Amino acid sequence: MGDRPDARPVVVTGGAGAIGSVLVRALADDGHDVRVVDNFSSGRREHLPADGGRVTVTPADLRVDAPFAAFRGAESVWHLAANPDIRLGTIEPSTDLEHGTVATFHVLEAARRADVKRVLFSSSSVVYGMPTQFPTPEAYGPLLPESLYGASKLASEGLLSAYAHCYGLRAYVFRFANIIGPQMTHGVIYDFFQKLRRDPTRLEVLGDGRQAKSYLWVDDCVEGMRLAERSAHDLVNVFNLGTADQVSVRSIAERVVAAFGGTARIEYAGGERGWAGDIPRQLLAIDRITALGWAPRRNSSAAVDASIEALRHASG
Amino acid sequence: MGDRPDARPVVVTGGAGAIGSVLVRALADDGHDVRVVDNFSSGRREHLPADGGRVTVTPADLRVDAPFAAFRGAESVWHLAANPDIRLGTIEPSTDLEHGTVATFHVLEAARRADVKRVLFSSSSVVYGMPTQFPTPEAYGPLLPESLYGASKLASEGLLSAYAHCYGLRAYVFRFANIIGPQMTHGVIYDFFQKLRRDPTRLEVLGDGRQAKSYLWVDDCVEGMRLAERSAHDLVNVFNLGTADQVSVRSIAERVVAAFGGTARIEYAGGERGWAGDIPRQLLAIDRITALGWAPRRNSSAAVDASIEALRHASG
Repeated sequence: MGDRPDARPVVVTGGAGAIGSVLVRALADDGHDVRVVDNFSSGRREHLPADGGRVTVTPADLRVDAPFAAFRGAESVWHLAANPDIRLGTIEPSTDLEHGTVATFHVLEAARRADVKRVLFSSSSVVYGMPTQFPTPEAYGPLLPESLYGASKLASEGLLSAYAHCYGLRAYVFRFANIIGPQMTHGVIYDFFQKLRRDPTRLEVLGDGRQAKSYLWVDDCVEGMRLAERSAHDLVNVFNLGTADQVSVRSIAERVVAAFGGTARIEYAGGERGWAGDIPRQLLAIDRITALGWAPRRNSSAAVDASIEALRHASG
Repeated sequence: MGDRPDARPVVVTGGAGAIGSVLVRALADDGHDVRVVDNFSSGRREHLPADGGRVTVTPADLRVDAPFAAFRGAESVWHLAANPDIRLGTIEPSTDLEHGTVATFHVLEAARRADVKRVLFSSSSVVYGMPTQFPTPEAYGPLLPESLYGASKLASEGLLSAYAHCYGLRAYVFRFANIIGPQMTHGVIYDFFQKLRRDPTRLEVLGDGRQAKSYLWVDDCVEGMRLAERSAHDLVNVFNLGTADQVSVRSIAERVVAAFGGTARIEYAGGERGWAGDIPRQLLAIDRITALGWAPRRNSSAAVDASIEALRHASG
């Protein structure tokens, strides 16, 4: 627990979420006053420190505007708020435009007016669409996302870049692999748990199970972002955050079934993609962030196991 | 003037603009019923055929919604509507979000609901930001635009790609060099004419005059887009449209001054960029579109001269 009188306030949008809340604790532990901006649609108050302490919360709907008062005097803005459910975007196409692109615009406008120095953004590997190069480096092109979620992440990246060039703030873009941890409220592992709790005899898997992606433990993710903020000083800084290994959906299904006693039958719906807009293969080049001295403590396989363990205990 | 009973209606947003109106005439000449959707903010009714003929016009504000009736039964939607003034976007940051990104979303939603097969979009070389590779190919990355206009073009590209993958329509993305022609209402050549008409003794040039870009004549641009629609059949088709040469801003200034009698003093404001968000160097790789059999009839230098000639006559 640090105590740095020179540490200026920071804003974390989506600070009550599964990733945001871990970041919030790390920043508070480092002596920052942390201003959480959240609409509590997927974020949860119980993710935040119970005693408040250095953390204050401003409920806000970023689709409409960003709360300028929370931005005033802030040194950095971590913009993590978003619709976390990629599949929802296909069903309700305005979701990611509003909760993603428009929200990012409002955050950047508030940051510009408050003269914030740095805006740091949680983007995603899905901006690459289905790449032809693995591991995929940050300079990969073309960027043709296949989901509306991916489109909103790409749109937000462009807005950060333009704001950096036009108004002089420094931009950080983090393209995440699948970030997992104890507080997940969505994603493949969480979904498998939900399904098996409803029906412990069978597990339906979207796609053919051969989708292979990398999974990054949330604490490793937060450490990577904070290291980049300290160490990278370009006008626009783009970093992949992932691991060097992958885990298949089939393997995850088998591990979750094993955690439930190993009796459930696994049924594959078939098809290369789990759903419209799913990217079946993902492996990010992480040379750029590892060159700064970062290394994930858990690889994808260990992160998946830790995540299953955490969800198993959460179930009681 | 063709007459093809099999030709289905097409929609052109921004069809009253400098590029849109040339496309509209070409499509109507080819036998299509053309439905122009325009808000007439920069488009002009006099750009459209006076007798109407195959062309009908629906005034609409695409920031709010796209007129579904105009999309019903259409085969293709050419989405050219946008804020054409890059510099305005820096002064009023919501401009390109609303007239660009949100408008594109509404167009795609209407196209999806109307089951339109193809959406063709006028993007821009500015999605590349300031590239390190010249000529710049379509697969170049990272895409870090420096203007809010560029951010909105990148956002729109992402939306087209996502809609293609999620809903099965075919997407065409055209990354334009500077498109010029007789009906321009903005851009460097138009600006120079405006300035010299106000004060024929001097011409102030933004930047140091060394910015070098390529310029494509509007008819060549329209032919390129139409050829791509006929010949390219990927789910998402991305094409640069430009010429193999460049013209410097200094050269354009000298040519426009010469057209005014050659007496004006040229004064350079200095700086590498003409304005915040300006990209001082642009040269697009055009191998992909030339491989389809396209070649611009005018190179950049000839296009600039033709454009100056047209503006000179427009002045009477």
